[in-house]
Amino acid sequence: MSSNRDIDALIDMMARLPGLGPRSARRAVLHLIAKREMQLMPLADLMHKVAATARECLNCGNLGTTDICDICLSEKRANGQICVVEDVADLWAMERGHAFKGRYHVLGGTLSALDQIGPEDLRIPQLVNRIDAESVTEVILALNATVDGQTTAHYIADQLEGRVTLSSLAQGVPIGGELDYLDDGTISAALAARKHL
Amino acid sequence: MSSNRDIDALIDMMARLPGLGPRSARRAVLHLIAKREMQLMPLADLMHKVAATARECLNCGNLGTTDICDICLSEKRANGQICVVEDVADLWAMERGHAFKGRYHVLGGTLSALDQIGPEDLRIPQLVNRIDAESVTEVILALNATVDGQTTAHYIADQLEGRVTLSSLAQGVPIGGELDYLDDGTISAALAARKHL
Repeated sequence: MSSNRDIDALIDMMARLPGLGPRSARRAVLHLIAKREMQLMPLADLMHKVAATARECLNCGNLGTTDICDICLSEKRANGQICVVEDVADLWAMERGHAFKGRYHVLGGTLSALDQIGPEDLRIPQLVNRIDAESVTEVILALNATVDGQTTAHYIADQLEGRVTLSSLAQGVPIGGELDYLDDGTISAALAARKHL
Repeated sequence: MSSNRDIDALIDMMARLPGLGPRSARRAVLHLIAKREMQLMPLADLMHKVAATARECLNCGNLGTTDICDICLSEKRANGQICVVEDVADLWAMERGHAFKGRYHVLGGTLSALDQIGPEDLRIPQLVNRIDAESVTEVILALNATVDGQTTAHYIADQLEGRVTLSSLAQGVPIGGELDYLDDGTISAALAARKHL
């Protein structure tokens, strides 16, 4: 490609990132080399730093740089609610909503017979242990609306039945959504869960 | 975002790369942290290496890790042809075509009255010097088909008039292109340059 081994290797590595392909990786690398002092060096430093310090919270599975993450350490967030999410990206999405004030539990995936992923692989036993340890009163299942996500939600609901209040995110029309562009399942769900005005 | 300063900073830096936005930067960073040993560390190392060694070829402006790039050093490519391109990305695009066997000259941009970019800012004097120094017989102007690109091509053609054979890339229908999707200018150019069968 560029007739230079290191630059080619850098482009190859960048092209393997999700969302980037060979063309955008080339553009990104040329951009970085052009802004060497301001971007390339700081980015490399930051990557080293994150590689050395990033770790999963031992309690909830969130990403951070300490054994117990800031959310689990914060007394303000010990309101008896735990929101169960599939992965860290989902936790970040919930946090961007600024609506949930409790703590999280990151499963690290979903149950999957096909991929032989069972409850032990998913931090589900840890979730069950947290119910008593943190005096949890409500578990909100914020799993993706996929078959595996819903199977996992049912399994967790079975495990926690009777011990806590269980809830899941409402299904319906997204804010700003147009009916014409929604799939049939979403419209059925929104109709079934209609609200009286 | 992620409730962690370093990880947030890394996402912010990645989001500033061309072709990436906040969402794809988050996905890329989570992917990198998940593959820390295999991807995050090597990527950071490679970035440091490239930041320390990458430089422009003193002769042609290509990117490499030596003062004179491999293409300029290769005797095989001293065939009397120089292909003039706007930037390194264009040089790489030409090299991917595997069709050009000569050397390159990277201008580093185009003439632009608006941005006050004149011939001295563009490595055009160096191009003129190379004509004699490398016994160049043909200069191929592979500049983009934009107004600034064509202005620059005309200026260079004026400078080299009578000293070398001048040519530019053919304009016409791209391989695999459909007429219905081509702009009027391309169709006109392809018609004007039609070939007898």
